Amino acid sequence: MPRSTGRVTLPIQEGIDDQLRELVALLGADAVRNSDGTDLPAIASELVDTVYSTYFPARGDQDFALAHPETLINQYLMSERVTAPSTQPLVIEVLAGYFADQFQPCYERVERFWEVIDRTTGEVVPPEDWSVDRERGTVTIARPRAWHVYTVSFLAEQLWDSTQMYNYITNGWQDEPGRVKERPYDVRKNGVWEHTREALAAWLEEHPEVDVVRFTTFFYHFTLVFNAEGRERFVDWFGYSASVSPEAMDAFEAEYGYALRAEDFVDAGYYNSPFRPPSRALRDWIDFTSRFVAARAKELVDLVHSRGRQAMMFLGDNWIGTEPYGPHFASIGLDAVVGSAGSAATTRLISDIPGVECTEVRFLPYFFPDVFNHDGGDPVGQANDFWLSSRRAIVRRPLERMGYGGYVSLALEFPDFVARAAEICQEFRDIHDLSGGQEPWCAPFTVGIVNSWGALRSWQTHMVAHAQWYKACYTYAGVLESLAGLPFTVRFLSFDEVLDGGVPEDIGVLINAGAAATAFSGGPVWDDPRLAEALRAWVARGGGLIGV
Amino acid sequence: MPRSTGRVTLPIQEGIDDQLRELVALLGADAVRNSDGTDLPAIASELVDTVYSTYFPARGDQDFALAHPETLINQYLMSERVTAPSTQPLVIEVLAGYFADQFQPCYERVERFWEVIDRTTGEVVPPEDWSVDRERGTVTIARPRAWHVYTVSFLAEQLWDSTQMYNYITNGWQDEPGRVKERPYDVRKNGVWEHTREALAAWLEEHPEVDVVRFTTFFYHFTLVFNAEGRERFVDWFGYSASVSPEAMDAFEAEYGYALRAEDFVDAGYYNSPFRPPSRALRDWIDFTSRFVAARAKELVDLVHSRGRQAMMFLGDNWIGTEPYGPHFASIGLDAVVGSAGSAATTRLISDIPGVECTEVRFLPYFFPDVFNHDGGDPVGQANDFWLSSRRAIVRRPLERMGYGGYVSLALEFPDFVARAAEICQEFRDIHDLSGGQEPWCAPFTVGIVNSWGALRSWQTHMVAHAQWYKACYTYAGVLESLAGLPFTVRFLSFDEVLDGGVPEDIGVLINAGAAATAFSGGPVWDDPRLAEALRAWVARGGGLIGV
Repeated sequence: MPRSTGRVTLPIQEGIDDQLRELVALLGADAVRNSDGTDLPAIASELVDTVYSTYFPARGDQDFALAHPETLINQYLMSERVTAPSTQPLVIEVLAGYFADQFQPCYERVERFWEVIDRTTGEVVPPEDWSVDRERGTVTIARPRAWHVYTVSFLAEQLWDSTQMYNYITNGWQDEPGRVKERPYDVRKNGVWEHTREALAAWLEEHPEVDVVRFTTFFYHFTLVFNAEGRERFVDWFGYSASVSPEAMDAFEAEYGYALRAEDFVDAGYYNSPFRPPSRALRDWIDFTSRFVAARAKELVDLVHSRGRQAMMFLGDNWIGTEPYGPHFASIGLDAVVGSAGSAATTRLISDIPGVECTEVRFLPYFFPDVFNHDGGDPVGQANDFWLSSRRAIVRRPLERMGYGGYVSLALEFPDFVARAAEICQEFRDIHDLSGGQEPWCAPFTVGIVNSWGALRSWQTHMVAHAQWYKACYTYAGVLESLAGLPFTVRFLSFDEVLDGGVPEDIGVLINAGAAATAFSGGPVWDDPRLAEALRAWVARGGGLIGV
Repeated sequence: MPRSTGRVTLPIQEGIDDQLRELVALLGADAVRNSDGTDLPAIASELVDTVYSTYFPARGDQDFALAHPETLINQYLMSERVTAPSTQPLVIEVLAGYFADQFQPCYERVERFWEVIDRTTGEVVPPEDWSVDRERGTVTIARPRAWHVYTVSFLAEQLWDSTQMYNYITNGWQDEPGRVKERPYDVRKNGVWEHTREALAAWLEEHPEVDVVRFTTFFYHFTLVFNAEGRERFVDWFGYSASVSPEAMDAFEAEYGYALRAEDFVDAGYYNSPFRPPSRALRDWIDFTSRFVAARAKELVDLVHSRGRQAMMFLGDNWIGTEPYGPHFASIGLDAVVGSAGSAATTRLISDIPGVECTEVRFLPYFFPDVFNHDGGDPVGQANDFWLSSRRAIVRRPLERMGYGGYVSLALEFPDFVARAAEICQEFRDIHDLSGGQEPWCAPFTVGIVNSWGALRSWQTHMVAHAQWYKACYTYAGVLESLAGLPFTVRFLSFDEVLDGGVPEDIGVLINAGAAATAFSGGPVWDDPRLAEALRAWVARGGGLIGV
């Protein structure tokens, strides 16, 4: 039995009550929760003080979704790049290469929202020179230029929630009878918002056992696109290309005084990856969307509070537009944020979030069969790796709570893992008790990280899908990973801030880390001589500038 | 004793007559030559049929050089990059960081030929805003912008021939008494051309023992810049920055109708490295200089022929402007070209030269103390490596002759090397005898290499100072190295040719190999949609395009 208890959240499920009792005691857990695809057992409230329940504002009511097919969430996609072999009409099947279970085309005002581009010259083909066949899902370009490459940027409708799709396919559930493929709905669309509020109120009424509503998450999923074989084709954990809709684009145009184009989202197929220096249009869109998301999320959180419950946000899945380091996040009024971490930097990404009292990290590995299997899976090894990485961050910046994710029945098949998890939980509590939740000594100056994103993406640079190793950024991610466990205050600055006011006086060392032409190194911003002026003047006054 | 004799040239020197007799017999050599810094012994004509002698048209008559200091060869250089710490006058010492034995500033019409550039903005500082102090060798910028970086592009005068400087320093001779540091003179300058012709005529008269005049080379050296410590600072075997002079720039302007700027040569400090996509100005300058060099070289070659001797060109040193694959080279009328090779590709660079009957390769290693020493030097190992590499090329494209370079007395200290060299000489002759000097079977199509340079730089891409390993190009150089020994006809094409007429019909496979933004991959040329059109059309007809 542990020396102390608390600060630990466990995923639980039905049908293994006795084992759950033992496990909760062994790990000293004080909270339990359900997962995507599992239900809370009746004994949940007996086991612990606090019961979390997953809540999905943008999916889950399949009857509503099917009854209102016009409310599906949209996403901008680019067709394959098709070469015209002659000047004869060229037919492009827009969804070729995409996953039929995930997308269908959205034909609303195609002349306004779709865009055909000659990628060989970069020129837009005017709408009068192409036509759409809705039966076949094709675009025909009447008079292409021979040997030029054409693409169609188009709005799609999402037929399956991205995270559920990922979970089902990863766990091999996609063909199980009784498993519903949940359709997502957009709170900007007809009746969805009213339905969302009513559904949450009713759900709170029906679930008195739930102490904490764990929003998973709000309204828009990050970019996750599967290919025709049902495997990952494009993933961008920061991507806004599924936050779009005709309604949103119309509202944007009315407010900002200019219309966004399909290319503002499709970005030649890069879909505004955070590696790309962000355009003005994208920055405006992020602000526009975050204000909307924060205002609506606040209404849901207020409703939760009015029923005497707490509101927690999961940092992931439909988190787009929450921007935890942005100016609108604190206004949501959340009690807690929970997220998954695979490194010191991703742990800091959660623990440093301003404007929320409680932060909780879900440690890897997830209790999923990709790791929890008896055919080479190594859950103990992975747990050790991730704990050693995250612990560096935890001792620098206190974290309130920890937990695990996935399906606990899988974990129970690995007693070695359970034993090691119990030790980790105890060590986590010991660190918190010994530090008293206070930050330790830091060097008497701040380390600045300057890039195109600045504070908005604190601890969020050089990463692809959390802490996954990625050739194009692991070198630079190492800079953040190192700093996340070192005795320095770290502050993220944008080039705009330096251009406007020079390097702030509290900065002792400024780091610019990133591959050429990326948002992280800066790309074209260095063409502005004022940037070099500001940095050289600051270095001459004693500042230390490090380029990586 | 060898099975056959001939096809081999040996460097010889005075004072070791008996050893030379033995060595000539052992290697089956039929020609001998002197080197930079050695004289032919009196027995030269007894030893072999053919005596070569080095001849330097652009240096060697130090009395003339000292009597005509206004004829020194110029070179464009860029000063260090100096940051202005304030708006107070900024003083730049133009030669700081350069080798004082190599350069002095040339003050002719500084407003025309020098250029001060704000490298932070790219703007040229007008001549009225800076002044030159000839006593101190400095430029003062009156009102710089604080924290901007400035450079001075300036014409220098060469005080020491580049190859001699390299040889002296490599061999440790620079401080030996009696060693003259020869000043180079420019045949475009006052009286030099007349002197050059007269000197050659007189020299031919005085040297009846010489059968072959081995020009080393003609008038302009490749770019070789030493730093303040007398070590290599910048070397570009293809560089034209020492082919320039006020006289040449004036003549260019009169002929081409536009004036070249210092920046056309200095190129932000890249000095038009062949890795840079060549500007129109550089292409014009290469053509302008090659026509001039070919016309003047032809006069010298004609003079040699009129005295019953043969004329050979060394491919290196002062070879700039000869462009062996260019349109003017054949008009020089040379009998032979000799060059050094360190790989199959550099062997083909010599053996494929059109318009000359005899090609000779000087195999590495040079008989220099950097390899021929008893402190870790491995002349046999190096000889094997280079022979194995070159042999691949020789069996594809017959080569008339081979030889060695450097100081034979050094080689004689290594009997193992001499024995191995004798075997290599015999093998070389055997290959020539067995092939009858004919090309072997090739595949029934041509492999094209497309880059910004095209045929002008056949076998001359991706290389730095011959076959030296260099991180930025070794991957791509491997493509040429591989092709140099494979059964394919290889043809070098420029993007301009493809843009003008598509891919020629004899090409079966087209290779575009090179790092992004270089002349070898093409850089901005790919912005022209006609290039993609031409290549896609050709691939659709069955062509094979390989990008590396």
